[in-house]
Amino acid sequence: MPKSPLPVLLYTDTLVSPDLLYFGRVEVHDPFVAFGVGGKKYAVVHALEFGRVKRTSDFDVVLPREKWLETARARYGAKAGIPEMIACLAKEYRIRGFRVPDDFPAAVFLKLRDLGVKLTLANGLLFPEREIKTAAEAACVREGNRLCSVGYVVAEKILRAAKIKGRSLLYQGKPLTSERLRFAIEVAIKEQGGNSADAIVAGGDQACDPHERGSGPLRPHELVIIDVFPRVVKTGYFGDMTRTYLKGSASDAQRKLVATVRAAQLAAIRKVRAGDDGKDVHGAAVDVFSKAGYKTTHGRNGSQGFIHGTGHGLGLAVHDPGRLGPVSATMKLGAILTVEPGLYYPGLGGCRWEDVVQVTDGPAKMLSRHPYDWEIR
Amino acid sequence: MPKSPLPVLLYTDTLVSPDLLYFGRVEVHDPFVAFGVGGKKYAVVHALEFGRVKRTSDFDVVLPREKWLETARARYGAKAGIPEMIACLAKEYRIRGFRVPDDFPAAVFLKLRDLGVKLTLANGLLFPEREIKTAAEAACVREGNRLCSVGYVVAEKILRAAKIKGRSLLYQGKPLTSERLRFAIEVAIKEQGGNSADAIVAGGDQACDPHERGSGPLRPHELVIIDVFPRVVKTGYFGDMTRTYLKGSASDAQRKLVATVRAAQLAAIRKVRAGDDGKDVHGAAVDVFSKAGYKTTHGRNGSQGFIHGTGHGLGLAVHDPGRLGPVSATMKLGAILTVEPGLYYPGLGGCRWEDVVQVTDGPAKMLSRHPYDWEIR
Repeated sequence: MPKSPLPVLLYTDTLVSPDLLYFGRVEVHDPFVAFGVGGKKYAVVHALEFGRVKRTSDFDVVLPREKWLETARARYGAKAGIPEMIACLAKEYRIRGFRVPDDFPAAVFLKLRDLGVKLTLANGLLFPEREIKTAAEAACVREGNRLCSVGYVVAEKILRAAKIKGRSLLYQGKPLTSERLRFAIEVAIKEQGGNSADAIVAGGDQACDPHERGSGPLRPHELVIIDVFPRVVKTGYFGDMTRTYLKGSASDAQRKLVATVRAAQLAAIRKVRAGDDGKDVHGAAVDVFSKAGYKTTHGRNGSQGFIHGTGHGLGLAVHDPGRLGPVSATMKLGAILTVEPGLYYPGLGGCRWEDVVQVTDGPAKMLSRHPYDWEIR
Repeated sequence: MPKSPLPVLLYTDTLVSPDLLYFGRVEVHDPFVAFGVGGKKYAVVHALEFGRVKRTSDFDVVLPREKWLETARARYGAKAGIPEMIACLAKEYRIRGFRVPDDFPAAVFLKLRDLGVKLTLANGLLFPEREIKTAAEAACVREGNRLCSVGYVVAEKILRAAKIKGRSLLYQGKPLTSERLRFAIEVAIKEQGGNSADAIVAGGDQACDPHERGSGPLRPHELVIIDVFPRVVKTGYFGDMTRTYLKGSASDAQRKLVATVRAAQLAAIRKVRAGDDGKDVHGAAVDVFSKAGYKTTHGRNGSQGFIHGTGHGLGLAVHDPGRLGPVSATMKLGAILTVEPGLYYPGLGGCRWEDVVQVTDGPAKMLSRHPYDWEIR
């Protein structure tokens, strides 16, 4: 009979660790000790957090950190800290050792081993089940994506209302900048219960750096990438969508770029199926690009073409477990993934089109929806 | 002659690690390898980040991750990953070993040791100088606090305009809730270049859990704690201030509570001086509370009274290095600290008053400013 896995141990905060948020379902912004044993979840928290964690979390037992630090000091001396406290807890709950995440803090890890606490690394995901989303989790992600769409509705309204004057876009008499458009998008999202920070609103060559947020005046007749990844305040889950716009008249080259990216996205989505290899999803997008003549090159001063993976997991983190890229990775039934191919050519501009799917035994289930006209006259 | 310290090595992302943001001065939301040797800073980043990091960061040398992973695979086989890549970099740059932060991921730490790379833990702060803020950093924090004040101006306007109707507060004809007030505060902050998420707007007994964000209708004649900690988008530095309000008429007990918290804060600020013990700052607040007859108790279902420390460091993180609490800790010249005593009594309510100071050889320098009337008729 195989031994049951060791109890889980975490020492981090929920700003840093989606694993901890998944485990305890409560936000705590300072590191605390959490573990699970005998089917129960334990948290050891500061007096400051005690009532709130007890009342609102999934933890079955909430222990006072002050008392357990005292216990550790009584046993190990005045300098005892978190590792000694964990050792005392292990003794109290007769825990023979812990399984810890790969990103467990090295200092605490080494000290715990010195104290004789057995530790094993997860060697991969601490909670493999975090990759498989329940229907309730899918609904949370869908809500995040609805918030993205709320942002696009506002962006489109502003782009439609903007006036072209030479190389400028004017909105309500002032130059339309990345900052102004981002502000309008993020306020609309906040009003409906989401937090969006650092949404990407990048035009022209700025968009060719896919993680450049964008700043300054937006120009007519240039592609503008808008990538929004708000967090739903109530649940902590994220949405993540990208649309590419152009205010004015697109050139043939811009039209071909956008049409090809969209074709690549649809080809990729068609390849999403439980048990299949995510590499083939990425490969489908790559194929569409190469057949259309788009080359990817890596030079001394940067890269152009299709310079990122096709997608990533989405959930309690924007980059959740799960990848669609050049490396083999089986798609799990129930996983939630973004599908977001893009092309980037300085001079011509960048285009990315991102939606979110849930992996099923059949065709992928769409968890995002925002049909739109990318060319706005 | 003492040996020079080992080169620094980081493997994390800037959402998680203010150390990494401090080191490279660029936001990257996926983990990457960074190290410093021979007075130069190196980053090893994905093609997706290459141009942006090269153009906007403090890194002297930006290396392509793809190429270095290839090098690692050529040397260690197809399964080589980040640790093997780091080992190759160490060889290339003739680095005898690295100094890593205490929260360095344990899995990478152990693997690097297996690969023969010498590692030592920082055993405290990786960059002790991060605790000492330059004048430029102080200006960034001051800007963060200015954004807090912008939020309070809006909150006060709304509280003034709100109408009392029985046990309700009505604003623009609808019940005034924590959510509505938070939204108005955060939009005003966003408009001026800050990101505020999860600002605390908690009234009545909700405020007795100091990290409870607050939800639902705000009530007249109840204390409302508003704790705002926005990030300045341009620089990444935070502000952090708290004010306590009451719409309606305060009782004598509420007035005494607020006056005592303010007196404790001023007494604490007077004790801030370079080289002195932060414990005495905390002690000054504790003294004011006990002389005024306020008791702190920890019971089975929670704590009441003064149930948290007096302050914490503030900078690229909301909880930056530096603490003012019951544990001894010398205040460093140039450190930036919050001073935020509070009292919490279910039934009566909670009050916290938070400002930010920089430690000098003389009286503390105030980095926040928002004089106000807490009682709003």
